[in-house]
Amino acid sequence: MFVNKQPRYEILSEDAMATLDKGWKRLVSEIGIEFASPWATELLAAAGQKVDGINVKFDPEWVLEQVAKAPAQFDVHARNPENSVVIGGDNMVFASAYGPPFARRGALRKEGTLNDYRDFLKLSQSFSLLDSAGSVVVEPNDAPLDSRHLDMQFALETLTDKIHMGNVSRPSNAEDSLNMAGIVFGGREQLETKPVMISLLNCNSPMHWDSGMLNSMQVYVKANQPVLLTPFLIMGAMSPVSIPAALAQLMAEAFTGIALAQLVRPGCPVILGSFLTNANMQSGSTCMGTPESAIGLFAIGQIARKYNLPFRSGGAFTSSQSVDAQAGYEALMTMMPTFLAGTNYVLHSGGWLESGLVSSFEKFIVDMEILGMLQATFTPLEFNEESLAFGAHEEVMSSTDSRHFLGTAHTMENFRTCFYRPLLSSSDAFERWEKNGCKDAAERAGEIAAQKLEEYVEPELDPAIREELEEYVVRRRAELGD
Amino acid sequence: MFVNKQPRYEILSEDAMATLDKGWKRLVSEIGIEFASPWATELLAAAGQKVDGINVKFDPEWVLEQVAKAPAQFDVHARNPENSVVIGGDNMVFASAYGPPFARRGALRKEGTLNDYRDFLKLSQSFSLLDSAGSVVVEPNDAPLDSRHLDMQFALETLTDKIHMGNVSRPSNAEDSLNMAGIVFGGREQLETKPVMISLLNCNSPMHWDSGMLNSMQVYVKANQPVLLTPFLIMGAMSPVSIPAALAQLMAEAFTGIALAQLVRPGCPVILGSFLTNANMQSGSTCMGTPESAIGLFAIGQIARKYNLPFRSGGAFTSSQSVDAQAGYEALMTMMPTFLAGTNYVLHSGGWLESGLVSSFEKFIVDMEILGMLQATFTPLEFNEESLAFGAHEEVMSSTDSRHFLGTAHTMENFRTCFYRPLLSSSDAFERWEKNGCKDAAERAGEIAAQKLEEYVEPELDPAIREELEEYVVRRRAELGD
Repeated sequence: MFVNKQPRYEILSEDAMATLDKGWKRLVSEIGIEFASPWATELLAAAGQKVDGINVKFDPEWVLEQVAKAPAQFDVHARNPENSVVIGGDNMVFASAYGPPFARRGALRKEGTLNDYRDFLKLSQSFSLLDSAGSVVVEPNDAPLDSRHLDMQFALETLTDKIHMGNVSRPSNAEDSLNMAGIVFGGREQLETKPVMISLLNCNSPMHWDSGMLNSMQVYVKANQPVLLTPFLIMGAMSPVSIPAALAQLMAEAFTGIALAQLVRPGCPVILGSFLTNANMQSGSTCMGTPESAIGLFAIGQIARKYNLPFRSGGAFTSSQSVDAQAGYEALMTMMPTFLAGTNYVLHSGGWLESGLVSSFEKFIVDMEILGMLQATFTPLEFNEESLAFGAHEEVMSSTDSRHFLGTAHTMENFRTCFYRPLLSSSDAFERWEKNGCKDAAERAGEIAAQKLEEYVEPELDPAIREELEEYVVRRRAELGD
Repeated sequence: MFVNKQPRYEILSEDAMATLDKGWKRLVSEIGIEFASPWATELLAAAGQKVDGINVKFDPEWVLEQVAKAPAQFDVHARNPENSVVIGGDNMVFASAYGPPFARRGALRKEGTLNDYRDFLKLSQSFSLLDSAGSVVVEPNDAPLDSRHLDMQFALETLTDKIHMGNVSRPSNAEDSLNMAGIVFGGREQLETKPVMISLLNCNSPMHWDSGMLNSMQVYVKANQPVLLTPFLIMGAMSPVSIPAALAQLMAEAFTGIALAQLVRPGCPVILGSFLTNANMQSGSTCMGTPESAIGLFAIGQIARKYNLPFRSGGAFTSSQSVDAQAGYEALMTMMPTFLAGTNYVLHSGGWLESGLVSSFEKFIVDMEILGMLQATFTPLEFNEESLAFGAHEEVMSSTDSRHFLGTAHTMENFRTCFYRPLLSSSDAFERWEKNGCKDAAERAGEIAAQKLEEYVEPELDPAIREELEEYVVRRRAELGD
């Protein structure tokens, strides 16, 4: 797990923060937020909030009291304890892309399959830069629809030994996620004191928590499993076109979602989510890796810290249709701010292409390079007598011939670890590059992905657990009629 | 000119800064710096420094007294006053690539020509994101060698009306640069109170100021033209493999160069330069856009501010051989830290490819997109009642049908300017992108470059001045025997 000990980059003045606070309080108290599950409005009414149908008008101070019940930091356990993580503080946890219906390898762009899904899990397991495969790295469209979540979770439990996310499509899927994790962790009752999966609940922005998400949230929160409550804001469509307005809306949506979660189970682990980007106002399409996303990231980090909440944001976003220069600069355009903001949970860290329609094997490798570079950049240096390397300067400057540091004692001692070693980037001379077939970064990335898949080793799992998981999948698939 | 009113990102603790101060002071006092021009060592000896041949051992306190004479901020005048700039403070000034021998358009990579040179000047003039074409955007290899600097400067004075840089290859070239600028600005004597060109003097690192650079520096400093004194550090080759050691060396080289400049002309405008990256320790090749470069940038900005010096660093670097994903992420990997560090003068902001061997027309356009995105990112937001756009939320949430912000009054008023508008990036749907020929960012960039060149309009210039410049070039070319 990466711990970001470098400073945070903050852009909100006290005045700006006060303006945002005024903004979200007015939204929740004057316009209200919609909660489309009767159990939710009943709970909120019983807690003294003004309920009118699905609309709930909140007392902002009550919301803040609820938000204050959420832990600032918590553990999430992996079946391999070495891969367990801490969410919150200076910790940054990275997971692969989530949700794309299409998979792409080289020029082949097609609907994702269970085979693609498994390959992305294998890659996610292979890179120590990643803490989790997440969940729906790509949609396995060839698996039967109603029991697909079982196939995905079986793959998550067997092909990786890192933490993963829970299924949220239906409350019964959430129950399956918990039951299967229970098999792995020695009984579902173990999970209550040992959270093992984070689940992504998106707000149906603007200001509407739909029943599907609320009902799945209820299952996870009751089981004390962390939920990631994420306003999904494409500015211009789901929020106004001004960043301050989008941030106020984000706070209104996330804080009221968190308030409800704390009503279901006080002290349950939650993550303040943010998915914030903007529409292209000429075409209406979604832009990714934009300046507006970067600014939003700086702000949301600061907001989360003010309210002592772990937060999720960022990712290796791009709207590019291919793994080209745009894909490279857009991914970094969001990922560097993700680090500067000290984001605690970073979904979409590997594979994202085409505004999230595609999970790309080549882009996955590009993203691993970006992640590696940033983890190196945000690792503090040691400033001391040794790192000043005065002896190297003495050695070189006393030499009468070639004045370079390649052969100094200090270099010989440190050359293996002194610099970040690229996974993908090439600094070969043009002639050498040409001789090797003029392979650009995308082509080389495809080769690296294929090689990593070939070298993949499945983590060990007790055969009895594996068998029990298999039996669960078979039984439930039959029950679901698939 | 872009003014960066966002905060700086700083990583050096007081202890770290003290360690660096100890480091450079020990280098200049115990090992010494080499100055390969007799006039320089004579001046330094007369000022009480210990000279032994070309080696000069410095009293660090004297160096700091000299450094303190340099202005923290100064103006540089363009022939079009609207394009004049201020160097220092929160101002950021951007110039195109400098030095590449090769030019590349699409697949065609060849030695640069005067035609390529002129085209890069036209592009540099066309983008208001750039403040300067710089000087040697690409080497015009088909122009006669000894008088090539005249051809370049004639092009700079006529095809652009922005500030530019002076030639440093020989002191007589520097004299030509000043004489030609004198023609444009109403007499060379005008320049002394009105600096018009910045000249790049690289240290021959480690710790050697060669005679060519020193002699050109002398010409410019005497004429009160700003000089950019730049340690050129590829860690592992020209400096030790530790970043603190490289920073201490950078301070030693730059500060002593500045001290000498202030001895030639107290109060002359100087810029603390930094070109800092690392070798690939496996192959010995130069890596660009690395984590080490980014860390160095954060540190050098902080050092420059401590010593009240304007500073130059950063750029759109890449070691990639083509305009691919690597070129995209490496360029941004240095350019975002360039903004975070608040760099005052940013050379290599457009066109750089292949570790500086190539000036690429496609990469130039990629770099303009990156520059535009970053200027937008580092522009502060307004947080107020208006930007909270409460009315937009009221309007949308009171609607009974479609809940989106595309048609709200607030959006209609602001949609033209609310978001950064991409120059190059595409968010087209895949089907549309495919129908349009599957053009990746590099291909689209080539089309944009060609279109910009077609639309280019030469800035007006008094025909008498143009004629005088032409006569100067003809006369001097004859004198130089070309």
